[in-house]
Amino acid sequence: MTKYVYLFEEGNKDMKEILGGKGANLAEMANLGVPVPPGFTITTEACRFFSEHKGKYPEGMIEAVKKCLAKIEKKVGKKFGDKKDPLLFSVRSGAAVSMPGMMDTVLNLGLTDETTEALAAKTGNVRFAYDAYRRFLQMFGDVVVGLKHHDFEKALQDVKDSKGVKTDVELDADDLKEVVKKYKKIYEKAGKSFPQDPFEQLMMGTNAVFSSWSNPRAVAYRKLNHIKGLIGTAVNAQVMVFGNMGDTSGTGVAFTRDPSTGENKFYGEYLINAQGEDVVAGIRTPKPISRLEKQMPEQYKELVKIYKKLEHHYKDIQDIEFTIQEGKLFMLQTRTGKRTAEAAVRIAMEMLDEKLINEKTAILRVAPEQLDQLLHKQLDPKAKESAALLGKGLPASPGAAVGEVVFTANRAVEMKNAGEKVILVRTETSPEDIMGMDAAQGIFTSRGGMTSHAAVVARGMGKCCVAGCGDAIINEKEKSLKIAGKQFKEGDFITLDGTTGELFEGKLATVDPELSGNFAKLMKFADKYRKLKIRTNADTPKDATKAIEFGAEGIGLCRTEHMFFEGERIKAVREMILADSLEMRKKAIDKLLPYQKQDFKGLFEVMGSKPVTIRLLDPPLHEFLPHEEKEQKEIAKDMGVTFETIKQKMSELHELNPMLGHRGCRLGITYPEISEMQTRAIIQAALEVKKEKKLDVKPEIMVPLVGTVGELENQAKVIRRIADEEIEKSGDKLKYMVGTMIEVPRAAVTAEEIGKVAEFFSFGTNDLTQMGCGFSRDDAGSFLTEYVEKGIYDKDPFQVLDQKGIGKLIELAVEGGKKARPDIKLGICGEHGGEPSSVEFCHRIGLSYVSCSPFRVPIAKLAAAQAVLKEK
Amino acid sequence: MTKYVYLFEEGNKDMKEILGGKGANLAEMANLGVPVPPGFTITTEACRFFSEHKGKYPEGMIEAVKKCLAKIEKKVGKKFGDKKDPLLFSVRSGAAVSMPGMMDTVLNLGLTDETTEALAAKTGNVRFAYDAYRRFLQMFGDVVVGLKHHDFEKALQDVKDSKGVKTDVELDADDLKEVVKKYKKIYEKAGKSFPQDPFEQLMMGTNAVFSSWSNPRAVAYRKLNHIKGLIGTAVNAQVMVFGNMGDTSGTGVAFTRDPSTGENKFYGEYLINAQGEDVVAGIRTPKPISRLEKQMPEQYKELVKIYKKLEHHYKDIQDIEFTIQEGKLFMLQTRTGKRTAEAAVRIAMEMLDEKLINEKTAILRVAPEQLDQLLHKQLDPKAKESAALLGKGLPASPGAAVGEVVFTANRAVEMKNAGEKVILVRTETSPEDIMGMDAAQGIFTSRGGMTSHAAVVARGMGKCCVAGCGDAIINEKEKSLKIAGKQFKEGDFITLDGTTGELFEGKLATVDPELSGNFAKLMKFADKYRKLKIRTNADTPKDATKAIEFGAEGIGLCRTEHMFFEGERIKAVREMILADSLEMRKKAIDKLLPYQKQDFKGLFEVMGSKPVTIRLLDPPLHEFLPHEEKEQKEIAKDMGVTFETIKQKMSELHELNPMLGHRGCRLGITYPEISEMQTRAIIQAALEVKKEKKLDVKPEIMVPLVGTVGELENQAKVIRRIADEEIEKSGDKLKYMVGTMIEVPRAAVTAEEIGKVAEFFSFGTNDLTQMGCGFSRDDAGSFLTEYVEKGIYDKDPFQVLDQKGIGKLIELAVEGGKKARPDIKLGICGEHGGEPSSVEFCHRIGLSYVSCSPFRVPIAKLAAAQAVLKEK
Repeated sequence: MTKYVYLFEEGNKDMKEILGGKGANLAEMANLGVPVPPGFTITTEACRFFSEHKGKYPEGMIEAVKKCLAKIEKKVGKKFGDKKDPLLFSVRSGAAVSMPGMMDTVLNLGLTDETTEALAAKTGNVRFAYDAYRRFLQMFGDVVVGLKHHDFEKALQDVKDSKGVKTDVELDADDLKEVVKKYKKIYEKAGKSFPQDPFEQLMMGTNAVFSSWSNPRAVAYRKLNHIKGLIGTAVNAQVMVFGNMGDTSGTGVAFTRDPSTGENKFYGEYLINAQGEDVVAGIRTPKPISRLEKQMPEQYKELVKIYKKLEHHYKDIQDIEFTIQEGKLFMLQTRTGKRTAEAAVRIAMEMLDEKLINEKTAILRVAPEQLDQLLHKQLDPKAKESAALLGKGLPASPGAAVGEVVFTANRAVEMKNAGEKVILVRTETSPEDIMGMDAAQGIFTSRGGMTSHAAVVARGMGKCCVAGCGDAIINEKEKSLKIAGKQFKEGDFITLDGTTGELFEGKLATVDPELSGNFAKLMKFADKYRKLKIRTNADTPKDATKAIEFGAEGIGLCRTEHMFFEGERIKAVREMILADSLEMRKKAIDKLLPYQKQDFKGLFEVMGSKPVTIRLLDPPLHEFLPHEEKEQKEIAKDMGVTFETIKQKMSELHELNPMLGHRGCRLGITYPEISEMQTRAIIQAALEVKKEKKLDVKPEIMVPLVGTVGELENQAKVIRRIADEEIEKSGDKLKYMVGTMIEVPRAAVTAEEIGKVAEFFSFGTNDLTQMGCGFSRDDAGSFLTEYVEKGIYDKDPFQVLDQKGIGKLIELAVEGGKKARPDIKLGICGEHGGEPSSVEFCHRIGLSYVSCSPFRVPIAKLAAAQAVLKEK
Repeated sequence: MTKYVYLFEEGNKDMKEILGGKGANLAEMANLGVPVPPGFTITTEACRFFSEHKGKYPEGMIEAVKKCLAKIEKKVGKKFGDKKDPLLFSVRSGAAVSMPGMMDTVLNLGLTDETTEALAAKTGNVRFAYDAYRRFLQMFGDVVVGLKHHDFEKALQDVKDSKGVKTDVELDADDLKEVVKKYKKIYEKAGKSFPQDPFEQLMMGTNAVFSSWSNPRAVAYRKLNHIKGLIGTAVNAQVMVFGNMGDTSGTGVAFTRDPSTGENKFYGEYLINAQGEDVVAGIRTPKPISRLEKQMPEQYKELVKIYKKLEHHYKDIQDIEFTIQEGKLFMLQTRTGKRTAEAAVRIAMEMLDEKLINEKTAILRVAPEQLDQLLHKQLDPKAKESAALLGKGLPASPGAAVGEVVFTANRAVEMKNAGEKVILVRTETSPEDIMGMDAAQGIFTSRGGMTSHAAVVARGMGKCCVAGCGDAIINEKEKSLKIAGKQFKEGDFITLDGTTGELFEGKLATVDPELSGNFAKLMKFADKYRKLKIRTNADTPKDATKAIEFGAEGIGLCRTEHMFFEGERIKAVREMILADSLEMRKKAIDKLLPYQKQDFKGLFEVMGSKPVTIRLLDPPLHEFLPHEEKEQKEIAKDMGVTFETIKQKMSELHELNPMLGHRGCRLGITYPEISEMQTRAIIQAALEVKKEKKLDVKPEIMVPLVGTVGELENQAKVIRRIADEEIEKSGDKLKYMVGTMIEVPRAAVTAEEIGKVAEFFSFGTNDLTQMGCGFSRDDAGSFLTEYVEKGIYDKDPFQVLDQKGIGKLIELAVEGGKKARPDIKLGICGEHGGEPSSVEFCHRIGLSYVSCSPFRVPIAKLAAAQAVLKEK
């Protein structure tokens, strides 16, 4: 027969599935010899039975509870419901994973009219007894019986009012008896009776915990936090201990190390003559744990011995709760402590030094995603406390930024050149704004989501960005930002926290990241274990340098279109687009060649012999044309054509679904001269850098948006012709590769054909997600949030690779590619390349590398190492 | 050693691959004992060698040619280059597939200064000999040596001018000698010499044929017509016979049956004293072949015997060429005759009756695509001859339409109700125009391709449409159509030919289709063999009735959104979209319920016990809002909201990529009340029709745009809840199915999961192609044509299912679906459901049915039958 009830000493920490986290840890402590008030746990399996059988208990459960009670009574020498020395219990829920939303705690269970009198007599403290009773009546009424919290508050207030006092403490024993009377009336009025049988109280409490597993808040929490596969919550009944029995009693919470810095010192707070809830409620100010040493030296010494024992036993930082009842120390909880990124890294590295854990465990101890916090400038937490919060948008790209408001990209560049620090404020950004974004300290937009242009580009640049702050009213023409009833003009200072999405008024202090020490050590261990290579997405020597600093081993994606926007060249680009004939187009393209060559030389010089994957022009041409009439008129003037001609061309280039339009390799196929120029620039640059700097340059030319092998054949032919021509002309030698993005679903399922032509595949998971799932990043906002909330997708597939669907397409492509070319190089260069669970997936399916923005390189490294370790 | 040269008698009709079509048929005729002038064929393999070895011949080829020549000389008793009785040859190209663009014909090869004299002497006809010589000089100079055709024309004109005559016939022998002199000078001037060695002439002619295989026109033709896998052209050298040697000579072309009607009678024309080219050139008017019986009874009798023999031998209609030289009949060519759809059906059915072919062959004899011609009203071919052609657009939907020009949908409806026949003329159409399109005889647009809204909807309606006629300037505001220098106003008559894409001025006569007789017989045979069920895409009882007439076995796709546009209901739809609260939305939706129910009742009544698949609302909501300010203002007034509110809502609903936006099941998930209303309407309608008409109604409710099983689960739950509720309320029973479109690539690769929830899959190949290939139908125009021209895609994947890529996704989905649910119903409902090669694919991969527009049902049936027959 299934065992549904466990005494603490019958369990252990590995039984979380059936005892819940709290129960398992109480059991573990009990077995470790740590002083834990005795108790028992009713299992999650009983909860499942209860849920599935309309509130019935499994056979034998009641009897088992009774048996446990009897054993505990014998142990502590008190009896539940005893009229002289009654035993009291706390009842708490506890699932395998910590989960708010369920019924939390009922204290003092076992008090009745009779046992309260007994407690008063036994402790000699009538006030204490009736205070405990009225608290129990209220908690039980509220969470078990379902009476209104407000009614209890009001009754208490009435008694205080009639006595003319302000706080509970001022009420004496008689007042509290009066409160108890009033509380009982609340039960009566609602047609409920308060059970005077302690066992009935216990089972009602159990029912309430079990039922709360299925309450809407708990269900919503599980959905939102992707908690799946749990069968229910356990119920922990534990003998009450009181920290509020005078000056030899007290209660506290503590961490075995500093959870904020990771420093190896005892960290926490306590209150004398108080119950646990008082520490949390914040009515009285707790004292730092170190003071306890003076106040209760003996108990402190014991506590230190216990916390060390626990940390040593669990081999990780512990978050503990304790109560001291009349000089006797009891542990009420221990669990793994939550910690900041800084602390996580320090604790892992120091525990390794202390030989508490081994290398592999140390690597697995830091959540890769957390590292992001360490790589960016952050707001000084102290400065934030007193700052004026103006509003909140999406935390689109982490870090902090302080600067003067500017409303246009051009102005951002001007002011930056004049030595100012600026924040670019726009309704939304477009590719035209790239230079301004680069010049700015941070970007703030009122529209767009986590994958809007502003967000994606800012993350790529490692630049702080708060996006989609709907409360902000931005008028770019009038150069005004209105938010929180205030108006900001150009030159006014604001501060962004991209890690939280907050916008503050004025200049806030910031703190710089620290990449040496423990961080560097962790990275070294990650490098030791990982198998995936980590490349970066970088379009400029600046980005590339940053990425190498972070340990990038190559460029996985250089987007050449970003180079098209800078300075004079955008003019030539526009000439190219607006050209009426092949000849005019070629003329414009020829102007671009020297620029592009310089760009590539810069990259090659930084990257040395590391491979550099360069993607040929990808976006639809209309993205390069100006959207505002004023600028359109300027272009017309520059090019000597009429404004009408420009308008006409704009309308010709307009597309209903630009994402699925004339872009990617389709441009190179209809305008081969663009691919020719880009190839020439790449190969000339590579040859020159090779010669001038004696570097073994490794260009990899990548064709975007291939859906069918014919497209790649067409472009590969152009690329190879031009490349071979340039190499021959130079008299030198150069190895280069030609490959393709796999980002169109059709390419994934016909990868075997494509692999015969491509020397490498790079998975463009952004577009593959868009086309594979059939939703556009720009438009999915209207339903994707709801989808994730409803659990239709586990996570936003633009942030976390959808392994089941899009991953399946990738697996098909890997299989096809390897069949065609066993040594094919396989990488990923979408936003997912720096997302830990996606990196793990890439490792598992056998990719050669992942490529991500410079600031995510360390994250990817750690995730790649963890992927290897998790495999074993 | 490979044999590179075949005497005609050494080959047969099955050797097309190496002898070409012409050569193989000449060989077949020679062996049948039909009088064919002797000759030989140089194989396509020699051509391949020639192409691959820079113009060299394979070893032994020259010798083989010489041997053949010798044998022929011996046979006919004349010698090539003989100075008394010279043998002359024609040289013609001929690949396995008939192919314009290559060098065609050189006649009279073997004539030199000397042999011309000999020919004159032998025939006693100096004029004849020199006329032959000058023709040869010109043809050889033009097509073999590469001299300018114009120079020869000018020289001939000069002689005519100096003699003061107008036609060639007026030139005598001396004049022609003068022409010959001038022609030779043209060679000299260009630095070329005319070879006086007949064998050299022959080899130069051979080179010219071989080289022409690779000329740009021929290459382009092969690409355009998807001719692949051929290795080259053959060269046919055949002893010359002359139809221009006086009144006992002649030449003609004929068909063994009437290629236009299919009637079993000898059909053709001939000319006395003429060469083949004269019949084609149209200088003299040829006589009907029946007249030959009187003019040359003996030869006619022989010709009839031969044509019957050939038809009986080939068991198909033959297209033959003959020449009579001085009373002796020679056959120069036979090949399978091209025929109209009408003829194809009649010939197949009559040959079956004649026991010439069996049922299977008869079914395979008609190209399914051709049937389209038979199902629609057509322009009377005679009326077209004298009609004023205004311009040409795309043949977007076949048939003919005559009517008055109207420029708006509303006006089309008004005029139709007033009893007029109208043609809707618009720049492009949108869903708002549906009612107007339905009211019109035909649709004419100046923009949009074969899969534009106008084209797709018109084909669905079986309505004539000419789309994308770029020459037309349409101003809807001013109600004016300008084309070919003319202006048309509302009420002016025009005529469309949707089969050719032509637009004519005025009213042209039309002829009605005939669906009984041979057509009905063919359909019966198709039904006997096919395994696929054929359903139709129909949204109205009218369409459904039409489809049943054509033999549809169910509805595979009823698009409910079309129902949303009619009359009053569009108001309620707009109210629903513009609603601010769930309550307002529900109120608007409730107004739609009775309409929808009526719609479905109509369909169920027509379809009886045939299954009806109804797709829930699919398009993005903004499609239902009016695009013009005037109408927007009206709505605002109707709804009692400000124009600004409407504008605001429009901008909120605007999407950058609507194809990948908030549509399909995403609507039903964010607004479950829409799915609820639609389900209620379907089930109530089904229950009522079942009860009222005692029909075994079979509704199949289809969820669109599912990408992940979660979406389907969500919607299936709503549907089943409402459906079961309605059924229970009725007290009756009703079987219904819940399934999904598979049109998102992710759905295809996760079909096993989805199949656990879906009772059927219907492949939406339009969207699957868009997302799978990553191009939008609306925008692909800018590159897709070029893609097909360059062979990157074989065919436009929106017209012909891309079996390799999109087909692969479908195969994966079929596999997954069957794994999850072995008896899953599988169908296709995209535009491809009526395209023959796609239908064959659907059969091959094991679908249960295809669904297509009513007018394509017969095509799909025939294609499905052929798919079975081809399999064996």
